[in-house]
Amino acid sequence: MDSSEKLNVALLGLGRAGRFHIQSIQSIPGINLRYVVDVDEPLARRLAKELECDYSTDADGPLGQADVDAVIVASPTHEHYAQIQAALEAGKPVFTEKPLGSSLEEIDTCFGLAKRSGLPLFVGFNRRFDPSFSSLARGVKEGEVGVLQMLRVTSRDSPMPTMDYISTSHGIFHDCIVHDFDMLRFITGVDPVEVYSVGSSFVEGIGALGDLDNVLVALRYDNGMIASIDVNRFASYGYDQRIEAFGSKGMLQAENRSPVSTVLSSGDGLLRPTIEHSFPTRYREAYRQELVAFSDCLREGAPMPVTHEDVRISFILSELGEQSHREAKPLRVTDHPALKHSPMEDPEK
Amino acid sequence: MDSSEKLNVALLGLGRAGRFHIQSIQSIPGINLRYVVDVDEPLARRLAKELECDYSTDADGPLGQADVDAVIVASPTHEHYAQIQAALEAGKPVFTEKPLGSSLEEIDTCFGLAKRSGLPLFVGFNRRFDPSFSSLARGVKEGEVGVLQMLRVTSRDSPMPTMDYISTSHGIFHDCIVHDFDMLRFITGVDPVEVYSVGSSFVEGIGALGDLDNVLVALRYDNGMIASIDVNRFASYGYDQRIEAFGSKGMLQAENRSPVSTVLSSGDGLLRPTIEHSFPTRYREAYRQELVAFSDCLREGAPMPVTHEDVRISFILSELGEQSHREAKPLRVTDHPALKHSPMEDPEK
Amino acid sequence: MDSSEKLNVALLGLGRAGRFHIQSIQSIPGINLRYVVDVDEPLARRLAKELECDYSTDADGPLGQADVDAVIVASPTHEHYAQIQAALEAGKPVFTEKPLGSSLEEIDTCFGLAKRSGLPLFVGFNRRFDPSFSSLARGVKEGEVGVLQMLRVTSRDSPMPTMDYISTSHGIFHDCIVHDFDMLRFITGVDPVEVYSVGSSFVEGIGALGDLDNVLVALRYDNGMIASIDVNRFASYGYDQRIEAFGSKGMLQAENRSPVSTVLSSGDGLLRPTIEHSFPTRYREAYRQELVAFSDCLREGAPMPVTHEDVRISFILSELGEQSHREAKPLRVTDHPALKHSPMEDPEK
Amino acid sequence: MDSSEKLNVALLGLGRAGRFHIQSIQSIPGINLRYVVDVDEPLARRLAKELECDYSTDADGPLGQADVDAVIVASPTHEHYAQIQAALEAGKPVFTEKPLGSSLEEIDTCFGLAKRSGLPLFVGFNRRFDPSFSSLARGVKEGEVGVLQMLRVTSRDSPMPTMDYISTSHGIFHDCIVHDFDMLRFITGVDPVEVYSVGSSFVEGIGALGDLDNVLVALRYDNGMIASIDVNRFASYGYDQRIEAFGSKGMLQAENRSPVSTVLSSGDGLLRPTIEHSFPTRYREAYRQELVAFSDCLREGAPMPVTHEDVRISFILSELGEQSHREAKPLRVTDHPALKHSPMEDPEK
Repeated sequence: MDSSEKLNVALLGLGRAGRFHIQSIQSIPGINLRYVVDVDEPLARRLAKELECDYSTDADGPLGQADVDAVIVASPTHEHYAQIQAALEAGKPVFTEKPLGSSLEEIDTCFGLAKRSGLPLFVGFNRRFDPSFSSLARGVKEGEVGVLQMLRVTSRDSPMPTMDYISTSHGIFHDCIVHDFDMLRFITGVDPVEVYSVGSSFVEGIGALGDLDNVLVALRYDNGMIASIDVNRFASYGYDQRIEAFGSKGMLQAENRSPVSTVLSSGDGLLRPTIEHSFPTRYREAYRQELVAFSDCLREGAPMPVTHEDVRISFILSELGEQSHREAKPLRVTDHPALKHSPMEDPEK
Repeated sequence: MDSSEKLNVALLGLGRAGRFHIQSIQSIPGINLRYVVDVDEPLARRLAKELECDYSTDADGPLGQADVDAVIVASPTHEHYAQIQAALEAGKPVFTEKPLGSSLEEIDTCFGLAKRSGLPLFVGFNRRFDPSFSSLARGVKEGEVGVLQMLRVTSRDSPMPTMDYISTSHGIFHDCIVHDFDMLRFITGVDPVEVYSVGSSFVEGIGALGDLDNVLVALRYDNGMIASIDVNRFASYGYDQRIEAFGSKGMLQAENRSPVSTVLSSGDGLLRPTIEHSFPTRYREAYRQELVAFSDCLREGAPMPVTHEDVRISFILSELGEQSHREAKPLRVTDHPALKHSPMEDPEK
Repeated sequence: MDSSEKLNVALLGLGRAGRFHIQSIQSIPGINLRYVVDVDEPLARRLAKELECDYSTDADGPLGQADVDAVIVASPTHEHYAQIQAALEAGKPVFTEKPLGSSLEEIDTCFGLAKRSGLPLFVGFNRRFDPSFSSLARGVKEGEVGVLQMLRVTSRDSPMPTMDYISTSHGIFHDCIVHDFDMLRFITGVDPVEVYSVGSSFVEGIGALGDLDNVLVALRYDNGMIASIDVNRFASYGYDQRIEAFGSKGMLQAENRSPVSTVLSSGDGLLRPTIEHSFPTRYREAYRQELVAFSDCLREGAPMPVTHEDVRISFILSELGEQSHREAKPLRVTDHPALKHSPMEDPEK
Repeated sequence: MDSSEKLNVALLGLGRAGRFHIQSIQSIPGINLRYVVDVDEPLARRLAKELECDYSTDADGPLGQADVDAVIVASPTHEHYAQIQAALEAGKPVFTEKPLGSSLEEIDTCFGLAKRSGLPLFVGFNRRFDPSFSSLARGVKEGEVGVLQMLRVTSRDSPMPTMDYISTSHGIFHDCIVHDFDMLRFITGVDPVEVYSVGSSFVEGIGALGDLDNVLVALRYDNGMIASIDVNRFASYGYDQRIEAFGSKGMLQAENRSPVSTVLSSGDGLLRPTIEHSFPTRYREAYRQELVAFSDCLREGAPMPVTHEDVRISFILSELGEQSHREAKPLRVTDHPALKHSPMEDPEK
């Protein structure tokens, strides 16, 4: 498309993630919200009026519109796979929240379809666009810490999700830790050879679901590097997202962010306000930047920042992490069925 | 106006401040940019097309438009006074960057006109809307530091403004320190009884203009409280804006903000990235919040957060601060001609 | 002994640790250095003159002195076992740097001897006396973080030890990580049920010794708590010693310390000085406090802060950690031979 | 004296400051406490026994002792002048807490006597030896901030001194701010040309004494530099001692210190422990370093780090600061009687 024109997008899903994308779209001059879709008709109608765009209760609604340049999939998780396929088949580039589907096969199908049709399929691993995390990744690549030896990701959610959400989330590995696995790949550019997980559950209800809320993952790389991921479903003090990269020449850390920069000194000590409460404010800039990046891919042919391989590997590591916990032993990454015969080979080739 | 409808605004001036307001407007669902004005016709035309609104090179252009609900004055300083009057006379509420005019009389004239016509006149003392400064002010009011004894404002600009800008800026007191005087009033709710300034100039060219680039102001309050303001035209490490409130029970500080939260530890020490580079990013949220507040005044009849008295007093203190430096002696605030016979009386009554 | 009198001590070993104890002794009014021992006769003579005390090149020298109230063992590691036994047999209470010996049997022998003779045997797990770590442990015990779920210890040495030192250090688990295992026990009061280690070597020479310089240990507790220890032989930015305790109600962290509290803000960012360079300054107060505690045990009959069980368990975990790395699998703590038949039973009973 | 021998000192005064010097002396191998003096005979006797030295209730006691190499004056303020003179006349080098006397004449007399007798007279401006402040001063001298433009000293005491202490303290300028004036000189190496003070009193009883507890001093330098000092008798959150140096190339700050490095994150925010409670812990290292420096002057002939001129100027500025507050106007430094006819001339010549 002509890079001087606005990108007209259709947004599928007006829930939490959808409303968040609306906010990003409004702040990006080059993107125009052209169409919204939600099964809740009154909601879709009201927002369409407010946002001065068309609406439908049917995800196919915008696919026939010639002036819809791309589709953003922010619908409930189980609808992603069908909607991605339908959009690609209708010739529309797709931006989608993860997951693409519930299995590696579905992921491969989506990317295969995108490849055959020559259309961009952009997966929203938003943390790659966070200014602090991307600055850390750049610093590591530029050698600021020398040879990377230990990489630690801390990722604790806030507020506590509802049990409804958790029960349909496919488990903490596929719902949360997949992002942390992607961070490791984003920063290091290489994949681990072994994964070991220890997990437990403290929150009533989560254990009963067979799910975990407290997990430590240890990863071994064949160059001697070691990584750890520690995750919790709920941090009482806010959305705790930190990364620490230690190497021969130094350490690079990305710390939490606070919306307010005050300090109250009293006889009780020095009190700073809580960190960002949740992902929408913590990653506001990241969400905005990833839509800008998506727009750049479409309008300027920029390369896709998240590849098929990236999505595959983070899915595979999530499966292995879960299995390692279940079997209480470390697992070799190349023993995963999808990699056994062609370890780490690029599935796109 | 109906609070469910969008507020249609005309923006006068598409320079630095104007473009900044565009960004804020785009992020506020309830405000719609209906009209832009700039003497640079190609610029006005281009932005109008991009933003899908009307344009003119004449500030009177939008005043006759029935569907323009309010005017935002972001034009060059010397045009403010005439444009504010014209807008109010045309029955349009006004949001304006300071200054309203070049004298106390002009300020009084603008507010008198607004009062007679029953129209809101909103002055953009944006720092009042900064999350950290407003949190500090709230904490002080709620007694977090006990009896306030010492209030310190540090305000250092970045990057260095051009000599062109400085030569038409009315001097550092009216251009910069007026904001800091307003912060004192915002936090304390009372006015000083005495002002003393020490100033100097380090930057070539500024001294030749008879202006200052390095200033300390000491203020005495009749309840024993003391305040200081220290200001510089240029901080090499970024836009340095801090406030410290010390009282009988503790200290409340608002610290600088950084866009990136990394720390690099090496043999050289612990390095954090520079703080926000300049006012547009430092006060991005403040700019946004003040437009939301303006909208609330218009749509919901909320009281004006910045009063005529606020604007007068900060202007008077700027005059006294400048005079104190010139005469190298402390000046009593009630000796100012505008207050001599009716000290601190509300000019609106 | 009479608590109003000074405690006269003999110091075995005038190397790095010995000289450090001298500094602590000098700052504690209630302890008097009465005797120093080192095989280096000129060194022992010189220091004895300077410190106004007796000296010998023979560790048995002070044991016959009636006015020596206690012995501090700071000699080379391989001499500890014999010296501890000789001192206890001579009726002298013993303060000793770890390790007590090179096997669990030797540890048990020392404590058995101490028990039979009714003499205090104090093991210098100095980190328990660090003001920040002990404050963190107290906070966790008092419930400041609610139910403890994840405990992380980071421990990176500085400066790089010599190869001579490393080659006789019994490996990174027994030399370094034993302290971190003790921290876990100190903070939680319970022991893990499973240990898993990943280790590697980046420093030339260390791998050739069969030793590691980069290790991550993951520990599982039967109440669902998880712990991690990450250790490196060398941090280029100083002695990096941190602990983070995460629980249902919050997080408690003990951060690094800096000798100087300056910040330099420039166009490069905000630079703070490096953290403490090495253990003698980082733990100066801890070394002092542990000697005070030793003195309190002797003079006031205070209970021993480090028990036989504490020393045993940290040794067992070090063995298991090493074995887990070697066998690349998690190990159950109760499978250790010393615990197999009587898991976690108190060996003193 | 022979630099290999210990320095034997007599300590006059066993009050707060005296006991503090004892702690420093005990931690310095090269200094030996030989003699203590206090009018409280039981106290002197008890400490002498404990410290294994001689004692007297008469300040002249140690002056005739051949093996007393130097005298440390830490007695009540009003005794300093006579004791300094007596010690110098007895041929003993003197380390003294400020003030030397109650007037400029007494200061000049003491230094005159020291000069004539060729004996060191060392005045304990301990902050010059604080690692953070001396690092800041070094950084400024080495050009880390470029041309110095604004220097700010914050100095708030903790805990609140007793009214007894305050009533005999010679007022906040001579008791407290004199140290801050010395810091300005220490950092800049030059003197201000004008002083202006604003002061008030919030603490019951202090105002009745005609004294102040809340003061801001503004200082003008003839190179355009500006300085401010803000002082309070009591900070509820601990001993608040900070310096900020702003210049053309950056800013250098010395921040407060905390004895414990923990952070508690909870729903209330991020809580760090209070800063150092009071001067003995805040300046522990500074007190130690200044005794080492005194010892170096005596044993190695090192130059005196605090000169007669330093002591004079800080006294003169304290007088001017007090007078400026009283007369509510800025005062020219060269108008001070002691400088009027020979501004800033070195009184030693």
